[in-house]
Amino acid sequence: MTLKLVTFSSAAGPRPGAMLGDAEILDLQAAGLPYADLAAVIAEGAPAVAAIRAKVAAPPAAARVALASTKLLAPLPRPARNIFCVGRNYMDHVAEGDRTRGITSSELPKFPQFFTKAPESVIAPGDTIPDHGATGVTEWLDYEAELTLIIGKPGANISKEDALSHVFGWTIANDVTGRDLQRRYGQWFKGKSLDKSCPLGPWIIPAEDLDASDLAIQLWINGEQRQSSRTSKMIFDVKDIIHHLSKGFTLLPGDVIMTGTPEGVGYAMVPPQVLKTGDVVKIAVEGIGELTNPVG
Amino acid sequence: MTLKLVTFSSAAGPRPGAMLGDAEILDLQAAGLPYADLAAVIAEGAPAVAAIRAKVAAPPAAARVALASTKLLAPLPRPARNIFCVGRNYMDHVAEGDRTRGITSSELPKFPQFFTKAPESVIAPGDTIPDHGATGVTEWLDYEAELTLIIGKPGANISKEDALSHVFGWTIANDVTGRDLQRRYGQWFKGKSLDKSCPLGPWIIPAEDLDASDLAIQLWINGEQRQSSRTSKMIFDVKDIIHHLSKGFTLLPGDVIMTGTPEGVGYAMVPPQVLKTGDVVKIAVEGIGELTNPVG
Repeated sequence: MTLKLVTFSSAAGPRPGAMLGDAEILDLQAAGLPYADLAAVIAEGAPAVAAIRAKVAAPPAAARVALASTKLLAPLPRPARNIFCVGRNYMDHVAEGDRTRGITSSELPKFPQFFTKAPESVIAPGDTIPDHGATGVTEWLDYEAELTLIIGKPGANISKEDALSHVFGWTIANDVTGRDLQRRYGQWFKGKSLDKSCPLGPWIIPAEDLDASDLAIQLWINGEQRQSSRTSKMIFDVKDIIHHLSKGFTLLPGDVIMTGTPEGVGYAMVPPQVLKTGDVVKIAVEGIGELTNPVG
Repeated sequence: MTLKLVTFSSAAGPRPGAMLGDAEILDLQAAGLPYADLAAVIAEGAPAVAAIRAKVAAPPAAARVALASTKLLAPLPRPARNIFCVGRNYMDHVAEGDRTRGITSSELPKFPQFFTKAPESVIAPGDTIPDHGATGVTEWLDYEAELTLIIGKPGANISKEDALSHVFGWTIANDVTGRDLQRRYGQWFKGKSLDKSCPLGPWIIPAEDLDASDLAIQLWINGEQRQSSRTSKMIFDVKDIIHHLSKGFTLLPGDVIMTGTPEGVGYAMVPPQVLKTGDVVKIAVEGIGELTNPVG
């Protein structure tokens, strides 16, 4: 059965858990498992996942928490370092971006373009994305649905062949972006790392439970579909991304890597569409779930 | 008197301290001060600095440590999140970079270009910069001397007028770079965040002890001077950098911000020069000190 690893809020602070069906959570600590957070689960890897599976299969009554009585947080509420991201990684997204700049024959990137988002940009499923347009920070707040992976096994100079063995699991992220800032500042960090600009979740699916190489990825604004593609259309697939990113650079357990967004972002629409107060952004990735956040 | 805040190694792990002249360190904890590390000093700010000054003025004998008996670490051995950096921030460095690409009339950046380096890239004064050329990761390992600031007071949307009040202090960093990677990957993170590519130190000078607006900044390779400029030649000064970076983005105590490098980097020399095993890189920033690291 597919395991869904979550972090949920409690009076004592964030706690690690696993979904029991749709309406309950297994509280890992109440079930006698020694993990302070999902970062500890990820660091231990396979034995931790096996121990959690055993508890999910026979959950102690005292460890069952009604989902309605709590709130899901981002699975990693505050990653240990900046989130690594890949830009321009779907062909049709490269083309739509070029069109906004009057470029008609797009040249595809020959190497993945890596940038980062600050760990404090992470927010939970359901949390409000600040309307940075209303506060004058950006004129062009935009969304980006992204398949996101969590590194399990550390390593540098990882070959494409070995790359997937370094993936602990999969989740979803929204790479909320200030488009004008992204362009104006040349390097993308500034437009990509506004406060609370990284909805993440709702859970992590262990890699052994999901082949993420060809999943439907979709996004809706207020129920209107804006993005619809498949992860198989990435220019650089997950193996490529890990291979390139790890050259001379050690990936660590708990690292979060966002793999880029497909076509359909707001700034490339005719006329361009901007995220604003009252909007609701819903992302779905097949086999993982849904990530929904209002703007306000 | 100028306070020099250090982190030094001990059998019990890294400890915070302050220099007593050139040959001794005040061990803050042995002196009865409650700080686990310099991050705690920075978070408390002015009262912590005042308490340390008082102990430096009258150091308890049991808190004096001979520098020769220990080793200075980076003042923040592992910053809490990625280090923020500004590229192309000295006019003559922009021009030399453009020359390597055949551009003869340089256009200056209109906005600062921000990128990041992973926190684990930090190494101590004296630590060896890995020869990423010898391992085939890059063909063009290069150095960059940079005035570096540490944020004290948190804040977002900081005005230029208020910016300096958010600076806790000053140190030095070497933004070691894989030039070919920086160019090949489009966005600069990949070329800028190789393992151990950020020598940092030797200490932090509190902002109240040093006006950093017009300091000599110099770098030597094996005793041959390569960089010599002044911090007053930045295109975007420290006030501008904090103002732009903090737009819609909350700066936190302990954030490390590197302010860019002047002209004289290896890749722009004729013929181009590459950092290699056996080289020794020495950086001096007036009023702060020296940061020296071998390559190997």
